[in-house]
This record gives sequence, C-alpha cells and structure tokens, in this order.
Amino acid sequence: MQTFFQYNWMVREQWYEWCESISEEELLGTRTGGVGSILKTLFHIVDVEWSWIQVLQGKPDFQEDFEHYKSLQQVRELDAKFRPDVEPFVLSWHAGLEQNMFEDHLADGRIVTDTWGEVMRHVIAHEIHHVGQLSVWAREIGKEPVSANLIGKGLR
Amino acid sequence: MQTFFQYNWMVREQWYEWCESISEEELLGTRTGGVGSILKTLFHIVDVEWSWIQVLQGKPDFQEDFEHYKSLQQVRELDAKFRPDVEPFVLSWHAGLEQNMFEDHLADGRIVTDTWGEVMRHVIAHEIHHVGQLSVWAREIGKEPVSANLIGKGLR
Repeated sequence: MQTFFQYNWMVREQWYEWCESISEEELLGTRTGGVGSILKTLFHIVDVEWSWIQVLQGKPDFQEDFEHYKSLQQVRELDAKFRPDVEPFVLSWHAGLEQNMFEDHLADGRIVTDTWGEVMRHVIAHEIHHVGQLSVWAREIGKEPVSANLIGKGLR
Repeated sequence: MQTFFQYNWMVREQWYEWCESISEEELLGTRTGGVGSILKTLFHIVDVEWSWIQVLQGKPDFQEDFEHYKSLQQVRELDAKFRPDVEPFVLSWHAGLEQNMFEDHLADGRIVTDTWGEVMRHVIAHEIHHVGQLSVWAREIGKEPVSANLIGKGLR
C-alpha cells in the first residue's frame, strides 16, 4: 500500500514541477472531462486523499473550496499542510487494518460500508485515474506529460 | 495485489460494455494523448498486462499488432485468450515474490532491474492511468465514462 502512495506523491510532485512552465491561464482553463481543469484536478487529488484518511481516523473532514486555491503555489501549500495528517497513517499501514469497517453516510441517507483496505485502494486509484486525465490535457496544450511509469523510480 | 487486478478487470469489462454503444468510427477515431484511440487503448492495456506477466515468468512475449485487432470483438477475444495466462499468476501472487528480480534488457543495450513487486504495481498503475485517458475521450464524444470508483464493487 505504501508503495502506491509513494508513487503517487512522486508523480504529483513531478506534475507540480511540470505546472511551473505552464501559464496560469492554461492551468485554470476549462477542459473536457474530469473536474474540468489541470489545477483543479491537482487540488481535488490532494483534497480527496486527505479527506478519506481523515474520516478513516474519525477526524474532522471539511470540503475545501477551490475558489481559495486557484494558484499552483496555493495548491502546493495545501498539499504540504495536509501531508503530515496523511503520511504517518499511510506509513504505519499494516495488513491488520485491511478489514476494519468504515461506515459511509451518503447524502441520500443510505449507509454503506467499505473496508479500510478498499478505501485506501480507492484513494490510490483515484489519483492515478485523474493523472491519466492530466496526461491528455497536457498533450492538448502541446506539452509532454509526466511519465506514469512506476518502474524505474526506486520503489522496491 | 489481487484486489487491484480484480478492479482493473471489472472496470475493463465495463468499458467493453460501454464501447458496445459507441460507433466503430468513434472507437477508432484519433484522439489527443495516450496511444491515440479508445480501442487502441484497450488493446494496449491487454497487451501490456499479458506481456509483463509473461516475461516475469520467463515465457515468450511478442508484440501484438493493433492492425489485427481493430474491432471491439477482436480486442475482447484477445483479452479472453490472454486471461488464462495472466489470472493464475495474479491469483497465486504472494509477498514472497515481491523481491524477485527481473532483468530488463532495454532497446538501447542497457540492462535495468525491477523487482517483481514493482512490475506488478506498474501493470496496475498502467491500466488505471490509461483508463483515466478514456474518461476524457468519453466526455469528448458526449458520453458518460465508466466510474473509476474502487469502493462499492465488493472488492474486500
């Protein structure tokens, strides 16, 4: 589990660096699919990862509003602010937590349960999926996307 | 590890079903980014998964040519043909295989090593990444993409 989080954090950092050479107009430009812009995708990834790790631990979650994070600098700062909440939980993850139950109270009143293992993998897949969207939008603005390779990153 | 493969196989099947309502022209139409079309992406996912699992086991790999798989039916058949090579290896995966070494002889003559654990995670991330690209292209043709959610699929 840790390996995939490390992978996502490395790739995310590389996307931040990639964003440095892109104008704010392009970063905020409306795109087809996903959550609709490059920067909003990175914000969404950070927000969703943190929110799930918070709720698993029974800690408060709140919906961050992208309106307050519409620059690369602000998204990076939010990520840096959230990381100390996320990283220790991830690094201390072990198989004994897999089957812990999380009760999700949905907006429509239903209650569904997910195991903690499902939630952790959901968070991992969530980021990789959205980064795939970034790779298309990168090509749309004529830029080479960050590599999605997991091999070759020393993640062993 | 198994959970992520199960997830990918479920989502892949849902994309095949999604493709049934899309014209062949749209499935083969040139798209920006990735490997360039919806159907070629599904073909590529199938091919790459099989190739990695083959080479880990020291079994022959060969480059499939998309020219021979330019219909949904043909890609599904290739997937069905490959699955019996892939599934037993995935289902019998255990932590003791994590640090096995794979020697990759690159085209430029260099030899790099990856652990089997790295390769397996690379295959998983590879598919999720490309499916993220499909989700953008789906919206481009005005269709709702398959959900990328890992929770709610009974993967516990």
